[in-house]
Amino acid sequence: MQMTEELIEWLGRIGSDSDGGVTRLLYTPSWKEAQEALAAKMELLGLQAYYDDAGNLCGRLQGIDDDCSCILTGSHVDTVKRGGKYDGAYGIVAGITALSRLRERYGAPKKTIEVVAFCEEEGSRFPYNYWGSTFMTGAASYKDIEQARDQQGVSFMTAMEAAGFGPGTKGKGPRSDIDTFIELHVEQGAILEQEQKSIGIVEQIVGLQRYTVHVKGEANHAGTTPMAYRKDAVRAASEMVAAIMDKTEQLGAPLVATVGQMELVPNTPNVIPGQVNFTIDVRHPDEKVLDEACQRLVETIRSAAAQRDVEIDIERWMNVAPIAMDLALTDAIEDICLKQKLSYRRMSSGAGHDAQIFASYCRTAMVFVPSRNGISHSPLEYTEPQQLEDGVRVLTDLLHQLAY
Amino acid sequence: MQMTEELIEWLGRIGSDSDGGVTRLLYTPSWKEAQEALAAKMELLGLQAYYDDAGNLCGRLQGIDDDCSCILTGSHVDTVKRGGKYDGAYGIVAGITALSRLRERYGAPKKTIEVVAFCEEEGSRFPYNYWGSTFMTGAASYKDIEQARDQQGVSFMTAMEAAGFGPGTKGKGPRSDIDTFIELHVEQGAILEQEQKSIGIVEQIVGLQRYTVHVKGEANHAGTTPMAYRKDAVRAASEMVAAIMDKTEQLGAPLVATVGQMELVPNTPNVIPGQVNFTIDVRHPDEKVLDEACQRLVETIRSAAAQRDVEIDIERWMNVAPIAMDLALTDAIEDICLKQKLSYRRMSSGAGHDAQIFASYCRTAMVFVPSRNGISHSPLEYTEPQQLEDGVRVLTDLLHQLAY
Repeated sequence: MQMTEELIEWLGRIGSDSDGGVTRLLYTPSWKEAQEALAAKMELLGLQAYYDDAGNLCGRLQGIDDDCSCILTGSHVDTVKRGGKYDGAYGIVAGITALSRLRERYGAPKKTIEVVAFCEEEGSRFPYNYWGSTFMTGAASYKDIEQARDQQGVSFMTAMEAAGFGPGTKGKGPRSDIDTFIELHVEQGAILEQEQKSIGIVEQIVGLQRYTVHVKGEANHAGTTPMAYRKDAVRAASEMVAAIMDKTEQLGAPLVATVGQMELVPNTPNVIPGQVNFTIDVRHPDEKVLDEACQRLVETIRSAAAQRDVEIDIERWMNVAPIAMDLALTDAIEDICLKQKLSYRRMSSGAGHDAQIFASYCRTAMVFVPSRNGISHSPLEYTEPQQLEDGVRVLTDLLHQLAY
Repeated sequence: MQMTEELIEWLGRIGSDSDGGVTRLLYTPSWKEAQEALAAKMELLGLQAYYDDAGNLCGRLQGIDDDCSCILTGSHVDTVKRGGKYDGAYGIVAGITALSRLRERYGAPKKTIEVVAFCEEEGSRFPYNYWGSTFMTGAASYKDIEQARDQQGVSFMTAMEAAGFGPGTKGKGPRSDIDTFIELHVEQGAILEQEQKSIGIVEQIVGLQRYTVHVKGEANHAGTTPMAYRKDAVRAASEMVAAIMDKTEQLGAPLVATVGQMELVPNTPNVIPGQVNFTIDVRHPDEKVLDEACQRLVETIRSAAAQRDVEIDIERWMNVAPIAMDLALTDAIEDICLKQKLSYRRMSSGAGHDAQIFASYCRTAMVFVPSRNGISHSPLEYTEPQQLEDGVRVLTDLLHQLAY
């Protein structure tokens, strides 16, 4: 029962910040140290470790049958800046633990199983997400990332090559042998904790639309412009944000809308802002409902703008459809929870994951364990040892069913 | 009639930006070039030009009477970044024009008159306003500015000394000989234009209070946190801003409130902001009304915070009392407008000016001319030549009354 927890602590020390956070940005020294340590750990536990050209690390437990197909489990090794020890890391160490146990107890499987430490999912260093899983599935290629640069101006390709990866370096490109992907992950929300469930069985990953609203009023002197003469962009924007939130609540759960980023121009205490730009992130598991909700929110914004005589420009810059997990696999996971007497609920994932890339490539399942206070992307991430173990038990049983 | 306009264009070329704006930050080369050009112009027009230790430039028209007192007129030579040609500059060139005309027409005055180009009023380079007038009146000393640094880390004293000024450099410190100060300035608002008046006679400069409101919610994942579980700082802040504006309108003109600066933390599209900080600038010409209005606004904010279960901290960091101009001088200006058949209105100044520093030091008056569309601190600043001339005529007559 200790192994997953020990591995979490061990991996969390690589790239650890002074305040208890973890920072492992793609292709940096701490990232490389983590992959090398994981490779050594895999070998120690009897798995055959190897990299692909993008820097994804796999630990292979060779199957006896020779059908060249493979079950993959795992998650991403990279973190956000000052992230936690569990996001991504848990799926990797849970996979290592499960494969190690299966090998010890049952020997070689019929069907090959691999555990993967994807090189990148978070998009924290370069403005590009899911490089690990999109490279492996062939959904993306080097062309998609060649323009990307980090905040220091280093190009994605330069960073990759400096870390020892890139075209032809390992002789392992996109794959066509994976027929199943299973990702274990911390929930990053508080639903399991609030409902006191041990396991979340993900039925779908929500769809997501992102917008930027540009509100154009008139910049003016804070002291010399009477209220009646103002075209105050921040007043209009504030009324829009309040109305967006009210409308989202009115449309009802599981719809969520977030205004995460806002910029005032010129942003100085003694000038009425002439322009305000803000982002909206809207998510729902049903594509049709999401589309309708976004339309309603856009109407809400336009109506607020008209009342304040400001101009608006609403730009949609992201539109990701919801994607379903494999029904047979989610049913199988539910059966395992029932047999193991683990409390569970079927749920949507509100966050994006590597599983959403795999879901259009092969049958895919995703399992959540609780996050304390729903906190993630923070040094305060925490999941109890028993909860970590519950997830590993579910994964181990599922892999046993599928591979032996 | 051409002289003021010509001088405005001439001075506006010093520090001109490619887009028609003007940038003359304190003690920079363009600032120094402007002061040197003004000094030469003063001498050319028969005024005795000299600097004080802070870099304030005065042009003296010596009086015949030997009572050692002096009438001062003028404004500031520095600009904001990408400012206009009129703010500050107009008061200087109007003063030069008026003194030149008086000297031509009437010869030496009984009482000494000086025109001043204050070194600094805007606080655009260093986080310190009114250095020119506070130095000259003794309201501030070197101690008050020695900690200030510009955005490049250059200290105020280093910049001053590099420009050739500082303690003892000119043998001219704070003064006790000024008994009257008259400032001519563009309105920086649209009231004169809206009411089609040529002259604004300032009765008082409004009082001003500035606050920063810190709203503390809980940062959380935009996708995994249902609306009902959120403590969304930007939702709460938006409701506060909307309520502040509604309450300000309800309390009525001439009260104005501005939210000019806002910062979201962490300010990223996929995270519910855990903290929002925003500023409020509140102004009213009556100190008691201003105090009461600020109290009502603080109550409004607290009530909005309570509804959203966020913590707030409201910090007042500026409190400037309203200050009245000299009643006899404002009456004298009104008489001049009537005699010259110039349309006028008595009004408050919603902006701060060097005149507010002088008002607690000597009798002080302030005269506005219209600003097209009320625009200031912008390359679009504009006042018509006839309006510039109307102001100069009022100033010339007033100086004639006082000094001859």
